[in-house]
Amino acid sequence: MQKEKVVEERVRVGIVLGSDSDFQVMQEAVRVLQEFGVGCEVVVASAHRTPQRAAEYALKAEERGIEVIIAGAGMAAHLPGVLASYTCLPVIGVPLQGSALGGVDALYSIVQMPPGVPVATVAINGARNAALLAVQILSLKDPHLRQKFQAYREKLAVSVVEKSKKVQQLLSNS
Amino acid sequence: MQKEKVVEERVRVGIVLGSDSDFQVMQEAVRVLQEFGVGCEVVVASAHRTPQRAAEYALKAEERGIEVIIAGAGMAAHLPGVLASYTCLPVIGVPLQGSALGGVDALYSIVQMPPGVPVATVAINGARNAALLAVQILSLKDPHLRQKFQAYREKLAVSVVEKSKKVQQLLSNS
Amino acid sequence: MQKEKVVEERVRVGIVLGSDSDFQVMQEAVRVLQEFGVGCEVVVASAHRTPQRAAEYALKAEERGIEVIIAGAGMAAHLPGVLASYTCLPVIGVPLQGSALGGVDALYSIVQMPPGVPVATVAINGARNAALLAVQILSLKDPHLRQKFQAYREKLAVSVVEKSKKVQQLLSNS
Amino acid sequence: MQKEKVVEERVRVGIVLGSDSDFQVMQEAVRVLQEFGVGCEVVVASAHRTPQRAAEYALKAEERGIEVIIAGAGMAAHLPGVLASYTCLPVIGVPLQGSALGGVDALYSIVQMPPGVPVATVAINGARNAALLAVQILSLKDPHLRQKFQAYREKLAVSVVEKSKKVQQLLSNS
Amino acid sequence: MQKEKVVEERVRVGIVLGSDSDFQVMQEAVRVLQEFGVGCEVVVASAHRTPQRAAEYALKAEERGIEVIIAGAGMAAHLPGVLASYTCLPVIGVPLQGSALGGVDALYSIVQMPPGVPVATVAINGARNAALLAVQILSLKDPHLRQKFQAYREKLAVSVVEKSKKVQQLLSNS
Amino acid sequence: MQKEKVVEERVRVGIVLGSDSDFQVMQEAVRVLQEFGVGCEVVVASAHRTPQRAAEYALKAEERGIEVIIAGAGMAAHLPGVLASYTCLPVIGVPLQGSALGGVDALYSIVQMPPGVPVATVAINGARNAALLAVQILSLKDPHLRQKFQAYREKLAVSVVEKSKKVQQLLSNS
Amino acid sequence: MQKEKVVEERVRVGIVLGSDSDFQVMQEAVRVLQEFGVGCEVVVASAHRTPQRAAEYALKAEERGIEVIIAGAGMAAHLPGVLASYTCLPVIGVPLQGSALGGVDALYSIVQMPPGVPVATVAINGARNAALLAVQILSLKDPHLRQKFQAYREKLAVSVVEKSKKVQQLLSNS
Amino acid sequence: MQKEKVVEERVRVGIVLGSDSDFQVMQEAVRVLQEFGVGCEVVVASAHRTPQRAAEYALKAEERGIEVIIAGAGMAAHLPGVLASYTCLPVIGVPLQGSALGGVDALYSIVQMPPGVPVATVAINGARNAALLAVQILSLKDPHLRQKFQAYREKLAVSVVEKSKKVQQLLSNS
Repeated sequence: MQKEKVVEERVRVGIVLGSDSDFQVMQEAVRVLQEFGVGCEVVVASAHRTPQRAAEYALKAEERGIEVIIAGAGMAAHLPGVLASYTCLPVIGVPLQGSALGGVDALYSIVQMPPGVPVATVAINGARNAALLAVQILSLKDPHLRQKFQAYREKLAVSVVEKSKKVQQLLSNS
Repeated sequence: MQKEKVVEERVRVGIVLGSDSDFQVMQEAVRVLQEFGVGCEVVVASAHRTPQRAAEYALKAEERGIEVIIAGAGMAAHLPGVLASYTCLPVIGVPLQGSALGGVDALYSIVQMPPGVPVATVAINGARNAALLAVQILSLKDPHLRQKFQAYREKLAVSVVEKSKKVQQLLSNS
Repeated sequence: MQKEKVVEERVRVGIVLGSDSDFQVMQEAVRVLQEFGVGCEVVVASAHRTPQRAAEYALKAEERGIEVIIAGAGMAAHLPGVLASYTCLPVIGVPLQGSALGGVDALYSIVQMPPGVPVATVAINGARNAALLAVQILSLKDPHLRQKFQAYREKLAVSVVEKSKKVQQLLSNS
Repeated sequence: MQKEKVVEERVRVGIVLGSDSDFQVMQEAVRVLQEFGVGCEVVVASAHRTPQRAAEYALKAEERGIEVIIAGAGMAAHLPGVLASYTCLPVIGVPLQGSALGGVDALYSIVQMPPGVPVATVAINGARNAALLAVQILSLKDPHLRQKFQAYREKLAVSVVEKSKKVQQLLSNS
Repeated sequence: MQKEKVVEERVRVGIVLGSDSDFQVMQEAVRVLQEFGVGCEVVVASAHRTPQRAAEYALKAEERGIEVIIAGAGMAAHLPGVLASYTCLPVIGVPLQGSALGGVDALYSIVQMPPGVPVATVAINGARNAALLAVQILSLKDPHLRQKFQAYREKLAVSVVEKSKKVQQLLSNS
Repeated sequence: MQKEKVVEERVRVGIVLGSDSDFQVMQEAVRVLQEFGVGCEVVVASAHRTPQRAAEYALKAEERGIEVIIAGAGMAAHLPGVLASYTCLPVIGVPLQGSALGGVDALYSIVQMPPGVPVATVAINGARNAALLAVQILSLKDPHLRQKFQAYREKLAVSVVEKSKKVQQLLSNS
Repeated sequence: MQKEKVVEERVRVGIVLGSDSDFQVMQEAVRVLQEFGVGCEVVVASAHRTPQRAAEYALKAEERGIEVIIAGAGMAAHLPGVLASYTCLPVIGVPLQGSALGGVDALYSIVQMPPGVPVATVAINGARNAALLAVQILSLKDPHLRQKFQAYREKLAVSVVEKSKKVQQLLSNS
Repeated sequence: MQKEKVVEERVRVGIVLGSDSDFQVMQEAVRVLQEFGVGCEVVVASAHRTPQRAAEYALKAEERGIEVIIAGAGMAAHLPGVLASYTCLPVIGVPLQGSALGGVDALYSIVQMPPGVPVATVAINGARNAALLAVQILSLKDPHLRQKFQAYREKLAVSVVEKSKKVQQLLSNS
């Protein structure tokens, strides 16, 4: 067990935030990856305030053993696209909601990437799904992780059935 | 060489269309995968007109050796999400433009997946990027493919420089 | 009277929620159906977390005596469309508001169904109207229910006149 | 056979257009209803230019034997809601695309009905689905029609499989 | 003076609300008209719950001496258009904000009237401007009212200058 | 008759265009006013390229006998609001479609006027309705014009009935 | 030092608010300019309530030594465009959020200026960036200011690195 | 004269295109700058396909004598923001229309820059205004250029008056 933990602590997913204020939403991704025993790190690296830092992170990610990058950003959310432009690793973008436009600006800024440099975009504030997508991608070469993911999905289904019962009890009591 | 080709002809990416009218846009994904020597197949399986066919495709994809699913759909584009709900493989969704709402309906229907079942969404009509994202994902376990992808990206950069020269010539001639 | 109640308790409308968190809005539909004495049941069956459960519900609804299905869902709200794809019964879709996009995502995901598989869509959070629409549909073969519906509409009109008086009193007092 | 035709020629669905220019899109609904042998009529009755005509149509529809009303309108598309306010019959609304706003105006004007008076809304320009929804509703009391609808849905599924083959042939030839 | 008041108390502007819950916003219009000494009345008359009441109000408005109608409504806000369809008087529409779509639905439902039946639309929740527009319209035949309106506009300009001073004081104190 | 024509040729409505390219849409307003015998003039006066010209037009409109101003503009359509800020006359704004945003920019720029200075906004490209609204406003003090307007509305209703017949013939022939 | 302060107190940037209620957001611009030692003034001058005041401000700005104008406004935010139409100085527009449409109305009203009269638009509520843009513009002729701006950007980058550490501490403690 | 031309040929404005397909729209900016005798250069440098090239361009622009950068890009238009993150020069962003979303994606991706790194955004496809804004900025330190700009604005105003006459002739002939 000890040994496995060590192996898993190798950082495989890099989570990059455009601002520390994005942490509250994005830590959901950390939690999911920890549940799956997938090592991850979190760095703040604004595409606009620290472009070189962001570029460098992406440039070195692969040689550092990172396999998937998750980037969360709001407003004119260039971070996921900027990271994607400096790496060949798959980049998952999480548009964040906190602006006057409610996240549509971030969504369009992330998903509408021009031909050549894709970003795998999830829902606005979809940090949980970003982590799950990373797990699905890593599962392609990690049968152990795949089993965990299948178990997660089964648990998810079971919890729906339980919630259905809860609702029916609420109704019969009312 | 012959041997390698045979290996590559194993279908690793399943491209699913909601309608045959989506083929014109989605064949760009086929072309990209062929360029990279990644075996793919194309099937039409509407989430609404043939729900069981779509479910079955997703359920059997993994055991058939598929590693990534790309799904393109327009309007209330449920296909990528429906496929994702029946498989643990990563699913890439391509929102298609052909409706009164210009593809925003398809974009929202694909990207706004609820927690638990992600779809990796690319730009409206972004078939090329869907295929490139699939290549990036597959490259994680295929160093040969990764090299091809790096070469592609370098060629992309070179072509930008050439286009810059072309524009400057246009200007100096005008 | 006793007898009538027994007849009405036969479940004629199935209300399906994508998540138990949707119950607060959707119970308005339950209340309306109860007022009209139309038997209904509520189940939670996520299109994405429990696709087979949702499919099965829709597949068996008709033989179980269900005549109309009401489905409420938010975000990429595939549930009404998925149910509609597995049944020939009329399906009424209620887009729910709870997301960064304020329900526009759910509205487009429900109303923009492709040709062949309609969903009768009502307003965002329009659970009350979903139930009333079910009553209108069932009234086509149930003259007794139709009378109740006509009475409801007359009461609605009367209450508007009363509210008008209340406003005029507010004004004359101010 | 003769006899059946006579029975079916009883008008059961009223299709109301806000303008004769809406006919091109809305005649798709006529075609579908004719395929199903459901008698229908088409009238032009603008909610704004002929409010009394529209009101009267809705008021008398039920006693004339109409069971479902389909209304198509563009821009500030009040017609379906206005008809719904004068009848207890189910009203299906088809938002039409032809305006600067591409049909979003019509969609919002039709689907966002306030509590008390629902309109069953289908996709922008969704005339075909409006007719299919009417067939589904009428099928609740007409087993013969239900069988036809089930057959239609099966044919729909078969045609998807055929289109899938066609696409695969296109690919293998290219 | 006494006499003038009596003359002004003649009701010249009819304010119609789709629901009593709209009163909070719409009473701003009442206040403005009272400030200008323009007689007005407020009635609740839903276009959907009480279509005949709304129609009748509009049909009789002119013979009752009403000169301008102001109608406020939210969601699929048909009320202003429905009133306009039954009268030749100018109708001013106020889109109200209270829905999941934040008033865009009401705005489109009011402003996008088809050719033939205009509604003079003001801003979302723009009850004050609706009343001012009514005053501008009535001023065309009422020089006394026009003078009041000019005085109002001058006062408005003066208050801006005063607010500018207040801001400058805030700044010099900070 | 001659005499009446002379009277009517007095310019009562000023139509202001932000650009001469707006004339194609806005001449519909001219035609309507000519049909009603309401004298009008057309001037081009950009709020941005000729702000003083626009201001002056509005400042002098009243003393020149203008009673209603109609202004059409596209993009950041400030013209109607700028004119309204310099006159106490009612100003009708026509948002024009010709931009990348399809007229939504012009609509918001015209309708969302802040408290104090209303613009009576009509539909995108709604030049016809702008003129009809001007006629309705002028009718308040011109019984002759009101009669013409009532006749217009009746003719409008008759044409709908005729179009309904035309559609029915189309159907019975098909 | 004393002397420099005097020089800098010359007002170089004029900040114009459409309403005093805009001050809360816009004072961020004042703070930034004060940090950079760039003299500024704040005036309230509504484009609609005080058009002449706004025009006069813009007309005299240049001769008064103003070099850049920043204008913040909400709703149909004409102020920046109106100022730009009366001056040859660069005008920076700040769309403000406070309306039912969440600032999209202000954004479109400011950014979509027609050819000939640009407004340099920043983000909704982007008062800070408006001031920074003014500093960048003024830096073109003021090497001392440019140095300050470079120092600001470096500090910005440093603060990102610090925030990154803070987030990592949060994580390792959790 | 010769001498002046040489001086002006110094490149003061850098125009950067995300793709050579953007040239057709963006050459309008070149034409305007040439009219004003402001030296400019055009380079193609995609933020995503050639991130280092774009970064390098921005990093070296100032020392190469560039004073203002204009960047045009479509879709997830990161180019202006990326350039702005690497330079202290003012950057003007032109959102381009060519995508399924009609340029709203590019607008949001450019204008919604986070605090610290502004981009001066103009209208969708507003290449002409981008160049004029650059001229306004450069005029702050170049009285000769300012005179040209004032002359341009006067000519603009004159052309509006001429167009007004043309429209009036069209009308009197019709």
